[in-house]
Amino acid sequence: MMSIITLTTDYGLKDHFVGSLKGKIISELSDARIIDISHDIDPFNTAEASYVIGASYLSFPKGTVHLIGVDIERNKENQHIAMQWNDHYFICADNGILSMLTQKIVPQKIVEINIHDRFPIEFTDLDIFIQVACHLAKGGLLNVIGKEINTIKEVTELQAVVAADGNSLKGYVIYIDHFGNVVTNISKQQFLEVAKGRPYEIVMKPKSIKTILPNYSAIATSDKYPIKTYEGEKLAIFNEAGFLEIAIFRSNPSKVGSANSLLGLNYRDVITIKFS
Amino acid sequence: MMSIITLTTDYGLKDHFVGSLKGKIISELSDARIIDISHDIDPFNTAEASYVIGASYLSFPKGTVHLIGVDIERNKENQHIAMQWNDHYFICADNGILSMLTQKIVPQKIVEINIHDRFPIEFTDLDIFIQVACHLAKGGLLNVIGKEINTIKEVTELQAVVAADGNSLKGYVIYIDHFGNVVTNISKQQFLEVAKGRPYEIVMKPKSIKTILPNYSAIATSDKYPIKTYEGEKLAIFNEAGFLEIAIFRSNPSKVGSANSLLGLNYRDVITIKFS
Amino acid sequence: MMSIITLTTDYGLKDHFVGSLKGKIISELSDARIIDISHDIDPFNTAEASYVIGASYLSFPKGTVHLIGVDIERNKENQHIAMQWNDHYFICADNGILSMLTQKIVPQKIVEINIHDRFPIEFTDLDIFIQVACHLAKGGLLNVIGKEINTIKEVTELQAVVAADGNSLKGYVIYIDHFGNVVTNISKQQFLEVAKGRPYEIVMKPKSIKTILPNYSAIATSDKYPIKTYEGEKLAIFNEAGFLEIAIFRSNPSKVGSANSLLGLNYRDVITIKFS
Repeated sequence: MMSIITLTTDYGLKDHFVGSLKGKIISELSDARIIDISHDIDPFNTAEASYVIGASYLSFPKGTVHLIGVDIERNKENQHIAMQWNDHYFICADNGILSMLTQKIVPQKIVEINIHDRFPIEFTDLDIFIQVACHLAKGGLLNVIGKEINTIKEVTELQAVVAADGNSLKGYVIYIDHFGNVVTNISKQQFLEVAKGRPYEIVMKPKSIKTILPNYSAIATSDKYPIKTYEGEKLAIFNEAGFLEIAIFRSNPSKVGSANSLLGLNYRDVITIKFS
Repeated sequence: MMSIITLTTDYGLKDHFVGSLKGKIISELSDARIIDISHDIDPFNTAEASYVIGASYLSFPKGTVHLIGVDIERNKENQHIAMQWNDHYFICADNGILSMLTQKIVPQKIVEINIHDRFPIEFTDLDIFIQVACHLAKGGLLNVIGKEINTIKEVTELQAVVAADGNSLKGYVIYIDHFGNVVTNISKQQFLEVAKGRPYEIVMKPKSIKTILPNYSAIATSDKYPIKTYEGEKLAIFNEAGFLEIAIFRSNPSKVGSANSLLGLNYRDVITIKFS
Repeated sequence: MMSIITLTTDYGLKDHFVGSLKGKIISELSDARIIDISHDIDPFNTAEASYVIGASYLSFPKGTVHLIGVDIERNKENQHIAMQWNDHYFICADNGILSMLTQKIVPQKIVEINIHDRFPIEFTDLDIFIQVACHLAKGGLLNVIGKEINTIKEVTELQAVVAADGNSLKGYVIYIDHFGNVVTNISKQQFLEVAKGRPYEIVMKPKSIKTILPNYSAIATSDKYPIKTYEGEKLAIFNEAGFLEIAIFRSNPSKVGSANSLLGLNYRDVITIKFS
């Protein structure tokens, strides 16, 4: 059996922190397979960590252990938890990161980690996470490293809202990716439930978007023109993670520009879909 | 036998895309050895991807599978191909990336990938690349995943040009590296063929370069002065990839400056060598 | 036995250099476990490389081989060395990087690498390092690849200075991390030796720091207020590497700001602790 541990942190790649983290993991579990998901989460931004882990965990085999190192210093408000969910394991602070997952599927088990006293005083919060990750990667039980709990901190800001009359859906930008594409918190599932087959428009200036494309290249609606003709046009798709994304066709933030720069869409900006 | 898969993409490292890619590869082929070449290719810049893969593939053992994720969305102009060349495998879109290689050595085999219909509709273009990469890494045959073709899209912009009178060689900047050194498309081989032992100068303002050095430190021509004296001086070498590079000795883009900043040399700027 | 090789370089991650380095290592030693410590060392900054390797090596198992690719071009002033120290191996140029380690513990053995003539002329300095790293990772002896030496280049700038009257300690900023926290060269050990239990203040404007905290969250001195109340406050701790660090609680360089930006503390700025 392979022991896969993924890492999602806000530690950046310049410092030695990620290297040290890996060194400690293989010191503890020499055949661990360690995969970086991201180390460039915006510092202390739990919403961004939540989106990234939700969008990626399913690419890994069942049984994978996901260590999330964002805002993990343990204090009165911030306990350490480990969760088995959809046959994956997650280790993080109880700061709302996992509530985006648990809102969709009921967790198999959640524990509040309580092994801190078993280790020397020099042990950092991250050292505890490493111990738990290696324990779980070896097939160890959750009950051995914590006491079962039933609720975790909820973060509701990640949900889009349906208007009272059911005729519009209001979400906002939760992530801006490397290409400057903006990802909203409007999921395909929620869109379909509200749309019920009605025509719609994603309200934007100067011109709304009236079709969500199946993929980026679908913007090339005519065979008469080369694909290149469509570069720089705005479009909407449901991305791989299942969320509505506003993009610029073949965007390059430093050249043609991006949805972020060209459309002025920033983190937390509102996006509304109107149905008619 | 080791199954090595290298990754060259423009996905960046902030998002979860590279982590998800690796997760999917090990889900398919658990003992794959995955090595990152670069994930910071300028978005959709196939020339840059071409230079980077050409400069690095030879550092890997024969049989290595190189997955190139730059501009891969499949459409009428952009088919997916896989190539066996110089005992290495390459998977990419037919957007000119591989023509820099095939201009030097005839490929062993090229196929247009045609397995897209065998997979669920949710499969992305990258998912297809992953299937092909794992198939080849396991020792699978090219014919199983595509139909043989004889030509791929040519990109000729990557070649330097000899003047009609044979007295000058005109290239341009194709890459700017981390140190701000600028790499041109003038190869050592082409230079030697045109130079035929004649004196030369790389035309630059305010002062041409008349000697291409064997290595950076060779700029220290006198033993009288410490190496440090030469910091900030411009020089030319043939880099590891075999191309003419204009550099600043011990350049640091944010401090002493670089060939890019100090000499004002940018991507696609012309560099001329005159022979006398 | 696992063969672990760590990499610390100033090559950056955009270029193919790090990928090629890894490809060459696994071509030579197919089961090598390669871990990145950092590839974003400030170009040619040996002090930064020194801090990073000193802060991280201990996270790896004994016997680990640490390859340090910063300023490695061999010339009259810059020989290649390999060192066994504290049961770890280090390969680098003799440019002062290792003196921060050897000032603390006497090395087990140091050799000046002398195998350059055994390889083809095309072999780069990095290729030699790879040969040495794989040799040592396989359990090879230092004497086989170099001749023993007793001294290496010393860099003393990395030490804080005690005033003649013993009443103050003067250090300076040696590193600024991803969070903008500034790390000084004042070690916990040196601080305790000089302090001898006396009250102290870290002299800063507009207000000195009079307590070095055991961890970041300890800034929340009152249970009456939520942790969030303390965001943006300055604090001091001894970091994991054992050095005095001035930080902003939950700093985010692009949002609330950091010790670097808010306190105006830059690389090489002086930090003084006064005892009373």
